[in-house]
Amino acid sequence: MVKVLLVLYDGREHAQQVPELLGTTENELGIRKWLEDQGHTLVTTSDKEGENSKFDQELVDAEIIITTPFHPGYLTADRLAKAKKLKLAVTAGIGSDHVDLNAANKTNGGVTVAEVTGSNVVSVAEHVVMTILCLVRNFVPAHEQIERGDWDVAESAKEEYDLENKVVGTVGVGRIGERVLRRLKPFDCKELLYFDYQPLKPEVEKEIGCRRVQNLQEMLAQCDVVTINCPLHEGTKGLFGKELISKMKKGSWLVNTARGAIVVKEDVAEALKSGHLRGYGGDVWYPQPAPKDHPLRYAKNPFGGGNAMVPHMSGTSIDAQKRYASGVKSIIETYLSGKDNYKPEDLIVHKGDYATKAYGQRAKA
Amino acid sequence: MVKVLLVLYDGREHAQQVPELLGTTENELGIRKWLEDQGHTLVTTSDKEGENSKFDQELVDAEIIITTPFHPGYLTADRLAKAKKLKLAVTAGIGSDHVDLNAANKTNGGVTVAEVTGSNVVSVAEHVVMTILCLVRNFVPAHEQIERGDWDVAESAKEEYDLENKVVGTVGVGRIGERVLRRLKPFDCKELLYFDYQPLKPEVEKEIGCRRVQNLQEMLAQCDVVTINCPLHEGTKGLFGKELISKMKKGSWLVNTARGAIVVKEDVAEALKSGHLRGYGGDVWYPQPAPKDHPLRYAKNPFGGGNAMVPHMSGTSIDAQKRYASGVKSIIETYLSGKDNYKPEDLIVHKGDYATKAYGQRAKA
Repeated sequence: MVKVLLVLYDGREHAQQVPELLGTTENELGIRKWLEDQGHTLVTTSDKEGENSKFDQELVDAEIIITTPFHPGYLTADRLAKAKKLKLAVTAGIGSDHVDLNAANKTNGGVTVAEVTGSNVVSVAEHVVMTILCLVRNFVPAHEQIERGDWDVAESAKEEYDLENKVVGTVGVGRIGERVLRRLKPFDCKELLYFDYQPLKPEVEKEIGCRRVQNLQEMLAQCDVVTINCPLHEGTKGLFGKELISKMKKGSWLVNTARGAIVVKEDVAEALKSGHLRGYGGDVWYPQPAPKDHPLRYAKNPFGGGNAMVPHMSGTSIDAQKRYASGVKSIIETYLSGKDNYKPEDLIVHKGDYATKAYGQRAKA
Repeated sequence: MVKVLLVLYDGREHAQQVPELLGTTENELGIRKWLEDQGHTLVTTSDKEGENSKFDQELVDAEIIITTPFHPGYLTADRLAKAKKLKLAVTAGIGSDHVDLNAANKTNGGVTVAEVTGSNVVSVAEHVVMTILCLVRNFVPAHEQIERGDWDVAESAKEEYDLENKVVGTVGVGRIGERVLRRLKPFDCKELLYFDYQPLKPEVEKEIGCRRVQNLQEMLAQCDVVTINCPLHEGTKGLFGKELISKMKKGSWLVNTARGAIVVKEDVAEALKSGHLRGYGGDVWYPQPAPKDHPLRYAKNPFGGGNAMVPHMSGTSIDAQKRYASGVKSIIETYLSGKDNYKPEDLIVHKGDYATKAYGQRAKA
């Protein structure tokens, strides 16, 4: 019989009000009864920080650990060393950078790290397009004006642009980046660009009407809008720091729904303040939950706008929760069956090695 | 020599900071020098309310009056009766409902009412898609959470959905409505519906993948999201009142970037409060500027969200201002040339009669 440890965010009254809020400690992805009926044990917690957290106490004998990118239970090398029975780490969602993958490969003969690929790529892509439009069209300051009882069209309009005829580039054109480009196609942007180690198929490029730029700095210099859609790994950590941001067009907008640690938060805040960046938006932070004094909560451009940040939520819509809850169940089913017939695209590391190029090859490079 | 009267919103420091903010009393659509060089007179004001407004004083001998939908100088029958020399009323933008068109047809042998068709249809369509995404993905409460220093993913996520697989319907499929549908196509909505007195061409319907519903209530009953993209006229004034809103799906979202008076503001506020509408957003108000106590500034759904209102700005982006300033100039050029070769699509009423079906046929019906 297997012990499953589930690290989720607390839903409190919200989980009661909306039972479809499956990814909460109260609603437990809907898997408790299903596991217990088979004789397995489920322990659920949101308490994941500090040495004496419930997460730390319970992981010592857990065989399966499940967590989300929205409130990640970080599986560091230290924690993996303590998790003597761990065989499977599942991300309810996408993005397994909360796991030390090299350490996972060396733990207990190789911990399998799997995620529910596809469960929320559409949700995140939609969030990216929303954030681009909010920034380019200056939504936040305009809505705040209405809320405080004012009326000043000039103040709102002076920072409002159309997305039409702008150059948009994505860093990474995987499942999310490609979906972002597809959604942008009818907006008649001047150009849709992408940077990735792997090119799209020529027919996909043609269908979307996008173009690959092989040098990141070269792409950034052409973009009015940049959207980050690559995984966090050794090669992308801190990528958008002072130097790279300085290569971006003055007055451009940056959207990050990938991972907070891909940008250097103080450098983004500084670039916004100076006006080099006209706006920054997205839903990812480092660390998470974002502390009250995280600079990207309050950073604004010289006109007092340009911030479209939200908590880590783009991939945890009600629709996405349904999909990743069902995906987690199916990964656990596969594990319990002992058949090893996982969907290949769900596997990040398996049998002691990288199963995906996105993390593996680039992390090793 | 011709006297031109221009009613625009004040740009103040914003007009100085951003000279591209052409649609302001300070920057005067960039037409002062051009008019004065030809010996004409230009009077510009934002003062348009009350009997003794500058607008009322100056219109008595103006031959051309120009205004915008963002800060409209309303040309009522009373004012038209006083405007003894008026020959041409130009909308810098789209939407000429601020003019009493029947009265205009009877004034001075027929005042020509023209607008810059196409100048901001893309801007508005982008704003519609932005607003739909903001409402469906629960952006505003989530951003406010970040701004006030909090972190509660559950609170944000419980009202966050994907646009994918939802039914979206537009009331009106003219230049803006069609562009909205085109931009929504790659979002993989369950269905894209439209209601209009005129069907799209079959090949356009097929290209977009949308379907006409001949009965408005029938369409509304199927829609998760409704977007209003029809002109304001006698047949659409107060259309979205208590009764019609009750035909909408419970928990649906309503977006209005057409005209404020198409909805009954108190009824929309009430429907939001009860949760029958999950959200309401857009940029149009009645009257304009919206008074401090306008109910749609502060109306929220039972979870405290669902409001994505901004001042009337969707069609006055910096990019749109450039286009409508140039369009106004070209309409005036035509008038001054005496050649009567206006672009047919720019004309609303001309030579004493309706020149467009959108206002004419339906208003008469």
